[in-house]
Amino acid sequence: MSPDHVPEIVVSRIPLYLRALSEMKAAQREITSSQELGDRLGFSSAQIRKDLSQFGEFGKQGTGYNVSFLIEQLQRILKVDQVWDTALVGAGDLGHAVANYGGFLHRGFRIVMVFDNAPHKIGSQAGPFTIQDTAVMEEQIRRHGIKIAMLTTPAAAAQDLAARLVNAGIEAILCYAPTSISVPDHVRVEYIDPVLHLQNMTYYLSR
Amino acid sequence: MSPDHVPEIVVSRIPLYLRALSEMKAAQREITSSQELGDRLGFSSAQIRKDLSQFGEFGKQGTGYNVSFLIEQLQRILKVDQVWDTALVGAGDLGHAVANYGGFLHRGFRIVMVFDNAPHKIGSQAGPFTIQDTAVMEEQIRRHGIKIAMLTTPAAAAQDLAARLVNAGIEAILCYAPTSISVPDHVRVEYIDPVLHLQNMTYYLSR
Repeated sequence: MSPDHVPEIVVSRIPLYLRALSEMKAAQREITSSQELGDRLGFSSAQIRKDLSQFGEFGKQGTGYNVSFLIEQLQRILKVDQVWDTALVGAGDLGHAVANYGGFLHRGFRIVMVFDNAPHKIGSQAGPFTIQDTAVMEEQIRRHGIKIAMLTTPAAAAQDLAARLVNAGIEAILCYAPTSISVPDHVRVEYIDPVLHLQNMTYYLSR
Repeated sequence: MSPDHVPEIVVSRIPLYLRALSEMKAAQREITSSQELGDRLGFSSAQIRKDLSQFGEFGKQGTGYNVSFLIEQLQRILKVDQVWDTALVGAGDLGHAVANYGGFLHRGFRIVMVFDNAPHKIGSQAGPFTIQDTAVMEEQIRRHGIKIAMLTTPAAAAQDLAARLVNAGIEAILCYAPTSISVPDHVRVEYIDPVLHLQNMTYYLSR
């Protein structure tokens, strides 16, 4: 099935399945079932089967799923059977925390450059990276063919930087700045903003 | 329309609309349109209109939306026209950062208690809060009728704590721990995990 035909809400659950399966594998599990995966994630087994069936046949009736095989398939579907080089823009406290986060590489991502526009930061370190001037950001991103950026700047700087990133070839932005950014249709944006998630849950709560 | 009948993907966009409208209001804007809101968010005006129409009629053909009015309506829909008391569980670096974050209150949330199980942390401060022992967590949450918790513990501790939180009456968990937690059907879980968002985008990228 082509990417456009799978509902976005289904696609958004596949990384959760992959994360749960990877935990099972780390615990030496070889086989699992839609029931077990569902129990672990708080979804019904029917939903797991239905979601996975959008992408193909990954298990046999009665024998369940081979954990390693299903991991490989989901990594392929999400295109994280490769490692994506990623640019980090904004080297404040949050940018430093992200630069130091050890959880990216084994899940398909590698930060390869960090930018900031503050003169006293340029040339200093953020994790293992030397912070570069945003003045050379577009050139560096283009030269390395980078498609993914993480934006950890203040809200006021986010839109202008997002436009520059898109202009340099970025096609996916993970925006930690607590503001909306507008990008062309071919570019994806996801937001890390705890309040968006909290408000999404209160909708379903009784007062 | 009852909450159950609005697709989850639509509900998940309402907090984005509210955030963008709040920024417009802060910039003294009084009237907006689905076109302008769409431009700001990178959505089509048709989608904005269709999403909002799931909840009622908020604008007049040709005159657009009153920003303050629409904010009030979306706050009511998301139930953040009230402030929700929230418990924070896990007072490591991330827990401290969340406890110190100033962006919750004006968007409907207030952390009122912080818990950890490490003896050397109990009694010390996390932001304006005195860290309490998780041994008293259930009792405190029950006594204050708290329904929302943020979980900033290591992955290994998350499932056990989630079960205890649910047992104490928690109905919504924002999970920063990079692991899946299983909860009963009446409890909502949202995850803050940058890799889930990144993998959600790579699905749509060309290699």
